[in-house]
Amino acid sequence: MRLVIVGGVAAGTKAASRARRLDPEAEITVYQEEPEPSISECGLPYFLSGVVERRDELVARTPEQFGESGIEVRVRHRVEKVDPETKKLTVRSLEGGEVFEDAYDRLIFATGARAVLPPISGADLDGVSVLRFLTDSDEVRRYVQERSPKRAVVVGGGYIGLEVAENLCRLGIEVSLIEAEDRVALAYGPEVAERVEEHLKKNGVNVYTGAKVEEFMGDGRLEGVRFGGGEHETDLVVVGVGVRPRVELAEEAGVEIGEGGAIRVDRHMRTNLPDVWAAGDCVETVNLVSGKPVWIPLGNTANQMGRVAGTNAATGENTLEFPGVLGTGIFKVFDLGVGKTGLSEEEAEEAGFETFSVAVEAADRASYYPGAEKVFLKLIADGASGRLLGAEAAGSGADKLVDVCATAIWGKLSYPDLVNLDLAYAPPYGPTLSPVIQAATVLSGEFDRARRGVRASE
Amino acid sequence: MRLVIVGGVAAGTKAASRARRLDPEAEITVYQEEPEPSISECGLPYFLSGVVERRDELVARTPEQFGESGIEVRVRHRVEKVDPETKKLTVRSLEGGEVFEDAYDRLIFATGARAVLPPISGADLDGVSVLRFLTDSDEVRRYVQERSPKRAVVVGGGYIGLEVAENLCRLGIEVSLIEAEDRVALAYGPEVAERVEEHLKKNGVNVYTGAKVEEFMGDGRLEGVRFGGGEHETDLVVVGVGVRPRVELAEEAGVEIGEGGAIRVDRHMRTNLPDVWAAGDCVETVNLVSGKPVWIPLGNTANQMGRVAGTNAATGENTLEFPGVLGTGIFKVFDLGVGKTGLSEEEAEEAGFETFSVAVEAADRASYYPGAEKVFLKLIADGASGRLLGAEAAGSGADKLVDVCATAIWGKLSYPDLVNLDLAYAPPYGPTLSPVIQAATVLSGEFDRARRGVRASE
Repeated sequence: MRLVIVGGVAAGTKAASRARRLDPEAEITVYQEEPEPSISECGLPYFLSGVVERRDELVARTPEQFGESGIEVRVRHRVEKVDPETKKLTVRSLEGGEVFEDAYDRLIFATGARAVLPPISGADLDGVSVLRFLTDSDEVRRYVQERSPKRAVVVGGGYIGLEVAENLCRLGIEVSLIEAEDRVALAYGPEVAERVEEHLKKNGVNVYTGAKVEEFMGDGRLEGVRFGGGEHETDLVVVGVGVRPRVELAEEAGVEIGEGGAIRVDRHMRTNLPDVWAAGDCVETVNLVSGKPVWIPLGNTANQMGRVAGTNAATGENTLEFPGVLGTGIFKVFDLGVGKTGLSEEEAEEAGFETFSVAVEAADRASYYPGAEKVFLKLIADGASGRLLGAEAAGSGADKLVDVCATAIWGKLSYPDLVNLDLAYAPPYGPTLSPVIQAATVLSGEFDRARRGVRASE
Repeated sequence: MRLVIVGGVAAGTKAASRARRLDPEAEITVYQEEPEPSISECGLPYFLSGVVERRDELVARTPEQFGESGIEVRVRHRVEKVDPETKKLTVRSLEGGEVFEDAYDRLIFATGARAVLPPISGADLDGVSVLRFLTDSDEVRRYVQERSPKRAVVVGGGYIGLEVAENLCRLGIEVSLIEAEDRVALAYGPEVAERVEEHLKKNGVNVYTGAKVEEFMGDGRLEGVRFGGGEHETDLVVVGVGVRPRVELAEEAGVEIGEGGAIRVDRHMRTNLPDVWAAGDCVETVNLVSGKPVWIPLGNTANQMGRVAGTNAATGENTLEFPGVLGTGIFKVFDLGVGKTGLSEEEAEEAGFETFSVAVEAADRASYYPGAEKVFLKLIADGASGRLLGAEAAGSGADKLVDVCATAIWGKLSYPDLVNLDLAYAPPYGPTLSPVIQAATVLSGEFDRARRGVRASE
């Protein structure tokens, strides 16, 4: 059996490794346009600043290492065409330029996503970059070394923009962050966004919200950015306004694309074509809370999907399932950890839920234990059933609270469960009752009042 | 309505506060033998060493503060008799010595637990202490200040013993820890116990397992300890060999006691007597995994039980339920965090499960992110259903992993859920796939092999 995988970052290499393990006889080839496979894209912002010191730390395995375990990884190769009728591929070497044919018995699309560079005048100037591949990092690092920029503009207040802002600050660069919407961290409620903005400012980042970039100015090389009606001198721009799934190849081959623009797969990561699976940042999945299709490209999920696609492609059967995601995510900006899971209040209401939501500010350990810090936690619950729909946290130990809430949502727990939940307590690790329990207790009060016909707002 | 609560630490004061909020008309009196109510018992080891600097930090609220919110707290008073027929109490003032009668409409036993001082010769010597109340801390601190002990022996390798060992080391005292069983941290499997012992030794603690204390030696004042056949000079002994529920008063009143020696209550924290509830370290509850009665005295659980008992005592109805516990616990010893939830492998097998268990050693963040440390995680699953039964963790971020597993057990999740669980990932917060997911993936392999008729051991 010949398995061909198109794309060799998280999902592609995971699928290859799983298939290798399950079927020692299979021929497995991974095609990858970029020069390195299995790179840790989430580490790129930290490589910019040198927090991650060595480039090779971001490459999990080289093509040679894959080769040793019987997986052929061909980097700098672009698959240009897939013919599902004949099961043939057209592949171009990006080094020599030669074009050749390959064939597959089974195929996995793991083509990932690409960063969006919006159609703004001057976006092609030297000094304007996105950050998606290791080669983008190389480019920004080279530019920083050669030009020693004093001022940088980061476009986009999502997690990539925020991580890049922090890491450019570490290089001693004065950083301005521009976000077109009225707040940063748009996937979160306004309470979290406010905390993030404050924290950015505290760390010396100039934050401009509701500001659209009108032009990147310069002559060959970047000299400034025009936004909000004003011109701002700058030596470097990193654009982090989002990514789009890379689906052109699959689409041309006849693979069905979802409404959000990513590849549609079933629970077994199968596309509509026979013997063709897809996984990772190029596919859409289901939000298990709303039941609706979502496209949330993340490295951990890509890994999990890759495992399922690789297994099923190896067996040719529906051996494993990937049920969907909760929309869990986390980022760090300077010393602030910010995470969420499930639906935000806004998303829950869009999905048709009547929600109850509460927020607490709690300590991350016993108040008397040295070093206690604050953490903000918001819970969003379904007003009808009491089920937890979402959670957002910001502050010390946010990652723990988000993971607990994610597990609770996965288990369909309601607020009475959370109030009595048996979580681990000792003074260095939390207050007597976890912030999750504290928030659930407040939530319980809201439900009580509602039952007695009084809404919290009255 | 007159509500009397016997005992004013965690469960008693929580119950009082809840009742106060729900019934503004009720008369609420709390009797407490010790001089302070609402003390943070879990903080005592840290007060010994001065990690917690001020004594008053360990007193959540004073009797005066309770008074201001309409709760009468009478410290240094012992309830000597409860007559459920007449609903009368006999109370003795421990200061003046006078005895008086009181009456209740509803009553809550929150009498807690007391530390066990085993019947060893010399246990009454000056310099031999337990650590349960704030007054015990005062005593040990006074002794340390007056005598500047060079060597101390901690008896008992449970979490109190371990925390005390660490904190005595902080005072510059040479500490020996003696455990009668063959390993410390007996509630855990041998892998964790081994890690704890290594960590103790690394931090200069002499560890003696399988060693029973035969005698505390000295003439009025402690001079040594005889154990394992040898005599060991020592200036201070702290005994942490466990606690027992304080149930004499309740038992004399006719309250039913469970097999483990603690008060038996239903899901509403009701005892067998009319209008009498009980909560906290003096009651037994149900282990939700084994379905069996358990007695696990912990501050967080006491708080949760107190909320339920206080609510139901205020309404007189079965308003709230306390479903039971998972057996979650955590402690820190030096820099090592160690926690568990659910059943250990041994406990699971005793409870009649055929178990599958796996262990992983994972990183606490992306391997390339600075400061990455190791964490050990063991998962125990039901071989029949795949359901998670228990988890043990030791190392960096153990608290997060334990809380995720506790929530998973509460939600009755099985290993396929855990493999696909959508937990928060960013390089500073974990490896791409959480150690929980990694371990569940290994577990999944075990189940696969078993299905194919091959046990892992073969």
